[in-house]
Amino acid sequence: MTTTTPAIIVDEAKGPFRQGTVERRDLRPDDVRIAVAYAGICHSDIHQAREEWGEALFPMVPGHEIAGTVTEVGSDVTRFAVGDAVGVGCMVDSCGECEMCRSDHENFCEKGSVPTYNGENYDGEVAMGGYSQEIVVSERFTLRIPEGIPLDQAAPLLCAGVTTFTPLQRWVKGPEDKVAVVGMGGLGHMAVKIAAAMGTEVTVLSQTTSKEEDGKAFGATDYRATSEDSTWEDLEGSFDVIVCTVSADLPVDKYLGLLKPFGTFVNVGLPENAQSVHFGSLIMGDKTLTGSNIGGIKGTQEMLDFCAEHGIGATVEVIGADEVDRAYDDVVGSKVRYRYVIDVSTITPAG
Amino acid sequence: MTTTTPAIIVDEAKGPFRQGTVERRDLRPDDVRIAVAYAGICHSDIHQAREEWGEALFPMVPGHEIAGTVTEVGSDVTRFAVGDAVGVGCMVDSCGECEMCRSDHENFCEKGSVPTYNGENYDGEVAMGGYSQEIVVSERFTLRIPEGIPLDQAAPLLCAGVTTFTPLQRWVKGPEDKVAVVGMGGLGHMAVKIAAAMGTEVTVLSQTTSKEEDGKAFGATDYRATSEDSTWEDLEGSFDVIVCTVSADLPVDKYLGLLKPFGTFVNVGLPENAQSVHFGSLIMGDKTLTGSNIGGIKGTQEMLDFCAEHGIGATVEVIGADEVDRAYDDVVGSKVRYRYVIDVSTITPAG
Repeated sequence: MTTTTPAIIVDEAKGPFRQGTVERRDLRPDDVRIAVAYAGICHSDIHQAREEWGEALFPMVPGHEIAGTVTEVGSDVTRFAVGDAVGVGCMVDSCGECEMCRSDHENFCEKGSVPTYNGENYDGEVAMGGYSQEIVVSERFTLRIPEGIPLDQAAPLLCAGVTTFTPLQRWVKGPEDKVAVVGMGGLGHMAVKIAAAMGTEVTVLSQTTSKEEDGKAFGATDYRATSEDSTWEDLEGSFDVIVCTVSADLPVDKYLGLLKPFGTFVNVGLPENAQSVHFGSLIMGDKTLTGSNIGGIKGTQEMLDFCAEHGIGATVEVIGADEVDRAYDDVVGSKVRYRYVIDVSTITPAG
Repeated sequence: MTTTTPAIIVDEAKGPFRQGTVERRDLRPDDVRIAVAYAGICHSDIHQAREEWGEALFPMVPGHEIAGTVTEVGSDVTRFAVGDAVGVGCMVDSCGECEMCRSDHENFCEKGSVPTYNGENYDGEVAMGGYSQEIVVSERFTLRIPEGIPLDQAAPLLCAGVTTFTPLQRWVKGPEDKVAVVGMGGLGHMAVKIAAAMGTEVTVLSQTTSKEEDGKAFGATDYRATSEDSTWEDLEGSFDVIVCTVSADLPVDKYLGLLKPFGTFVNVGLPENAQSVHFGSLIMGDKTLTGSNIGGIKGTQEMLDFCAEHGIGATVEVIGADEVDRAYDDVVGSKVRYRYVIDVSTITPAG
């Protein structure tokens, strides 16, 4: 037994989106049914819909930045009630038993967590994501969206928010730290807002200064162009933490040179090619090069609570269901300011 | 006014050593005069004596793994007395005022710390190292060698000991951690002893298993050949911390694959070439690639106290002053078991 819900579907790699319907399972005892309000467009949606990250499962309904309202709860659900504002991020299940799951790192579940789309549930059902009007998810993978964050601004927090919050929470020691954010797109603008809310002094490092005004509005105190040699000279040895949100090839040694001793360069982007690093750049100053991949459910809730406390949401542009193809091109062309979210009420299945 | 002391001197890059004399300054108020007993041969001595690390200062007296006894103290010295067993490591001065010096990281002094040899004191005098019968050093850079560590086994702790202790102290969370040590030479054998003394389970990863018996005597529970494919398969996702002590090109992604999520690969060797790293290897599991360069004076004293408490010294082969050239070739050829220390009483200046 299932229910049918309107959704935005891509049938083949690089294919156009169409508006249709997908099935949602009936509630299991631990499930909640969510009326989706908004679904953010993450760059990784594009990589998967275009099959740029290895074989993908079609037809596909992308979307792992989901915000909506609970409409029904299973018999064993204790943490949510009808009417609650909730979110769903990049995962919808994990084994719950391994060392990683038990330590609140379901994102590194040893069995492999179940992605919100483009993957299979443990029972073999293909997961369909948030570009749809309804989703059914275990309460274990449902997040509470605190009062004060509008649902459209909340949706991108479920991926872009936690992806940048996790490394800042791990590596920033306190408000005295100096932080740099490389790139100011969907991830980068959240990194700036979160690091500023942590009380740190934030510098944006971007190819140009075209988004300087926005960066300062998001809380940055300085905004510098990486295309200028003087940036690298002036900022040598300046930062405790650099969060890099770009997925291009990077002059890693130059970035490590911008760190103070014991500083950390953490990458949340995923360059396709191997990067070149002189270990001397790490050894001179005991510096750290690391990566960070989303976060666990507990950490995601902490991020949402932190954002509510500090009045932070994503800066979004709400689009209709018929604009997704164009929006994908704009994201690839870095034209979005700063996250598209789809108003899924606009989905109108043909026929 | 100076005093003259017998020393082992190299007059030009790659030149042979000769036995001669060098001058030591008269005591300043904060200086101690040390009768050197033993000086370890560190691989970095060889790089510098052979001018492989950029321009070097000749004539040179290498040696920054120095153990001996205080013979005289300056008028302001409060922490040492005649007869004390002491050591000197890689530094003999630093500015004492910068953020790094004030936080006990003189090794990253912003003015630049003064190396024990192949560098200049702040007054312009060229520093001469420990391959000599006497050295004069500020008490700030003099370490106490606790009772129970024989001086010949203590000497290598001043560099090889602190170089491996520092990253283990920083990155090992507790005895439940699983540690691997890559390479078992002068640095690696100390890493094994220290990690085992911290209570961790230690695996040695070496090109072959030729030194397995020694590794297990030093405290390793497992010893695996990196030349075997099965090593990489069996040990995938096994370690919390990998301390890499080799300076060759490394298959970094493969080593990162041996880490658990949140694990750390720390390099204390210095490969000449840039290394290649896929950032995906860091992002999948929030893994860390870092380096570590000796340690500060406070940390060096902690290392010596830790070694005394756990009955650890370096495993050494004592050689005479006339064996240094041969010993250098043996170190380069990985023939030493595990550190040569020069008995400087054997220095006989010609003429």
